[in-house]
Amino acid sequence: MNGSSECSRDAFLGGRLHIFQPRKGYRAGVDPVLLAAATPATPGQSVLELGCGAGVASFCLAARVAGLALTGVELQGVYADLARRNAMENGTEMSVFEADLRHLPGAVKEQTFDHVIANPPYYERHRSTPAEDAGRDVALAGATPLSDWIDAATRRLKPKGYLTMIQKADRLPDMLAACDHRLGSIRVRPVQPRPGRAAELVILQARKGGRAAFGLEAPLVMHEGASHKYDCDDYTSQVVKILRGGDALPWGT
Amino acid sequence: MNGSSECSRDAFLGGRLHIFQPRKGYRAGVDPVLLAAATPATPGQSVLELGCGAGVASFCLAARVAGLALTGVELQGVYADLARRNAMENGTEMSVFEADLRHLPGAVKEQTFDHVIANPPYYERHRSTPAEDAGRDVALAGATPLSDWIDAATRRLKPKGYLTMIQKADRLPDMLAACDHRLGSIRVRPVQPRPGRAAELVILQARKGGRAAFGLEAPLVMHEGASHKYDCDDYTSQVVKILRGGDALPWGT
Repeated sequence: MNGSSECSRDAFLGGRLHIFQPRKGYRAGVDPVLLAAATPATPGQSVLELGCGAGVASFCLAARVAGLALTGVELQGVYADLARRNAMENGTEMSVFEADLRHLPGAVKEQTFDHVIANPPYYERHRSTPAEDAGRDVALAGATPLSDWIDAATRRLKPKGYLTMIQKADRLPDMLAACDHRLGSIRVRPVQPRPGRAAELVILQARKGGRAAFGLEAPLVMHEGASHKYDCDDYTSQVVKILRGGDALPWGT
Repeated sequence: MNGSSECSRDAFLGGRLHIFQPRKGYRAGVDPVLLAAATPATPGQSVLELGCGAGVASFCLAARVAGLALTGVELQGVYADLARRNAMENGTEMSVFEADLRHLPGAVKEQTFDHVIANPPYYERHRSTPAEDAGRDVALAGATPLSDWIDAATRRLKPKGYLTMIQKADRLPDMLAACDHRLGSIRVRPVQPRPGRAAELVILQARKGGRAAFGLEAPLVMHEGASHKYDCDDYTSQVVKILRGGDALPWGT
């Protein structure tokens, strides 16, 4: 799996970041880049990524915000190894633990973090067909319920710390139901493929001990125009700045 | 209260509808018009409006869809009387019951409906300051929990019947939590005041016995531009068609 022929080296953030990831298996797309863009970290803060895979979200965040202390937890050893390799390749320090987020190692459990971020698997095991590649299958359709992701994140947050999570839009009710009294100031940013279309993804932000009312932000629109143009990717200018320039995706005031 | 001097006669839908409502007290604005626009009724269907007030949503819906059988339930006698008066004035039949939706009269309980619609009070009693007018206060900040509204609606829906509800956006988690296993195929339409701004309202649609995944629709944007222009109301063209033309607000396919 770690042999060069089994991995590709892919550019993110307009070439500021290079990520090794398996040619077959789960391959990071724009979603972890959006997750990083939506995380309101400030220099020097601590960040825990649950289910970090090859580390794309954490490394994108570190490319925007200086001096972060990065920690990653990943269930699958091959992806945890890739995250360590990608940390070295990009000159970024990250402590990566191979572990089930429901049974975190002591070194993680004894810490709390300013931010917890996660891009959990998008499909529920019982609702989907297994992928051919076993690693890709776990990454796409993990057996861990969303409520366990949110509970683990909540436990590891400092008071007033932020949870930032990206997920398929149709899981929004499940995500909201999993945010218990420990979390508040919840805000949701819909991500629409095009103007006028239903959201495919949502980015959820919650604060530990937050007291503000729930907020539903204006959507981020990925592509210009009503339909696909074959000769260009037609990203909106805001999305180009995020994907190529590493810009933040700000939350409303 | 029913004397002419205590009521105004206000035009809706570009003058197709005239509604008597108290000069002081709860006065219908655009919200019940949006509720009617978002209700996917077809000619001849039955519609129950919970908390119908002076009846604006039901009469707007009847102006768009022919031959509906309208029923309204309203807690406050003065508003129930106004709804009956407005039915006569607009030549529309509507059975209006003065009742608490948690204790519906037998004549309503023995029926089921193709549609239940509601524009429940926007403020929770314990979080807000009472309004000076007692009737307006009940209409703005009812003591009935949202979960009771949704439960009463669900009970009165036919199988595959539609619940359509408009509410403040910050109550979306409460609304979703109140939609139990009897409801499905839930869709949410955010209503934004302007492009790029957070939603102020949401319109929720659910089907009794629906099985489709949750959907988050593209927002309806009320006003053009980033800020208010003093010399016009600057509604978007879609909103003008709904408010003045009585158009439907379609849901995505």
